[in-house]
Amino acid sequence: MQRIAICAPSRSITEEDAARVTALACEFPGVELYFHPQCFLEEGHFAGPDAARIAALVECANDPLFDAVWFARGGYGAARVAEDAIAAMAREADRKTFLGYSDGGMVLGGLYAQKLGRQVHAPMPVDIRREGGEAAVRRTLGWLAGERGGLEPTLDHHPTAAFNLYTLAMLCGTRLMPGLAGHVVLVEEISEYLYSVDRLFFHATAHLGGIAGLRLGRVGNVPENDAPFGHEVEDIARHWCARHSIPYLGRCGIGHDIDNTIVPFGVAGEAAGQ
Amino acid sequence: MQRIAICAPSRSITEEDAARVTALACEFPGVELYFHPQCFLEEGHFAGPDAARIAALVECANDPLFDAVWFARGGYGAARVAEDAIAAMAREADRKTFLGYSDGGMVLGGLYAQKLGRQVHAPMPVDIRREGGEAAVRRTLGWLAGERGGLEPTLDHHPTAAFNLYTLAMLCGTRLMPGLAGHVVLVEEISEYLYSVDRLFFHATAHLGGIAGLRLGRVGNVPENDAPFGHEVEDIARHWCARHSIPYLGRCGIGHDIDNTIVPFGVAGEAAGQ
Repeated sequence: MQRIAICAPSRSITEEDAARVTALACEFPGVELYFHPQCFLEEGHFAGPDAARIAALVECANDPLFDAVWFARGGYGAARVAEDAIAAMAREADRKTFLGYSDGGMVLGGLYAQKLGRQVHAPMPVDIRREGGEAAVRRTLGWLAGERGGLEPTLDHHPTAAFNLYTLAMLCGTRLMPGLAGHVVLVEEISEYLYSVDRLFFHATAHLGGIAGLRLGRVGNVPENDAPFGHEVEDIARHWCARHSIPYLGRCGIGHDIDNTIVPFGVAGEAAGQ
Repeated sequence: MQRIAICAPSRSITEEDAARVTALACEFPGVELYFHPQCFLEEGHFAGPDAARIAALVECANDPLFDAVWFARGGYGAARVAEDAIAAMAREADRKTFLGYSDGGMVLGGLYAQKLGRQVHAPMPVDIRREGGEAAVRRTLGWLAGERGGLEPTLDHHPTAAFNLYTLAMLCGTRLMPGLAGHVVLVEEISEYLYSVDRLFFHATAHLGGIAGLRLGRVGNVPENDAPFGHEVEDIARHWCARHSIPYLGRCGIGHDIDNTIVPFGVAGEAAGQ
């Protein structure tokens, strides 16, 4: 039995979201979900004050009852709690798998930097809100139950990490940034103007010298600007990779959508315990 | 006579903008403006292709006829040209003053990093489009004519630099980032959600260890989010400054508006040639 603790380092979900995900989890008898009550707290933008989000994350990570910690939702907030929460994690956390994406990458990045536990870019409970979102949530539940069908198909023998581009850009140079030399780095983006994507690539690639290569996931819901940007998104990736001698390796399957693939950090076989 | 070359490393302005600024400049007989034709180019988002923006900036910087180079407008684009343009600048550029703000901070930062010329955060020709924008444009023209009334009032004996927060966050850790140890750093922001301001502070302050202090300019036109953020903008600045032992020094007068003050980089007296 895999026991999964769910907490919300960024924004909150509702009891209804949790009920729908719990219902789906019945399809996976090897998986048992525990929604920490902090998931439902609301204070301003966040799922409760910083202290409550830190406490819940540390509690889930340090409780020997659980095998994995799954982030309920992204949306910004983990940057305010990740460093303190990771500092308060006990040896027990090292046995665990941490799963999430988007803003959750702040915690995944910080844990990977500390080589604490295993980190997996994966759909989150909040994805149940998307049309057809059950498929995304099932992908993570299946992964937790031992299925490997939802794995990002481009994974190879290289260590890999996957991030939302904006989240990665914000991690660069901070105490939460893992060393990514030799890694294939996958990035995706949502709801950003193309000029903003270009600006984030300018920044992130300047910090990614020495990676094995970059793959571009989906860049969704790009708002229309007063003038079309003039470069396609893949041209943007190629431009900035070339600038920093980073091999551009093509597309991959991550994104803020129901097809978002699963990417264990590090070498996939190892992270899967295979 | 101060001869000022105007070019557009980011977005374009119109001939009408230029005519209105030229008309204002008649009030300052010691100042003569030359609008480089590249200011009016349009290609997608930008004032012409990267190559044209680089060429115009280098031409203005290297031409011994000019005393200053004034950026016409911000809006993103300088990140794609600053490094190559600065690399192509000749000794002549070192005699010049470069003026602008917002995305222009990419060039100002890169020049300051190279100790090439003098850099001044100052209103730009495009500010003529704002209601009451003449006051902003006159402030820079007055500065160029030798007036000192538009200077940021909080300037003291510390070396100082002023940036748009997002621009500074993107500069951090890149080849364009100047060393700011011992500096008072002024930041302002426009049209960003407070969660985004918080995220940019998370990132930028992680790169600003060792500065003498931070001052917060205006944070204007904050969009309403689905939930109020829960922290006021000055609390955000205090929070992240405290995190990195940066003295928070209070407010200052820079911003994306007609009251935007003039901030010579370095020690104000020196930069003003006094």
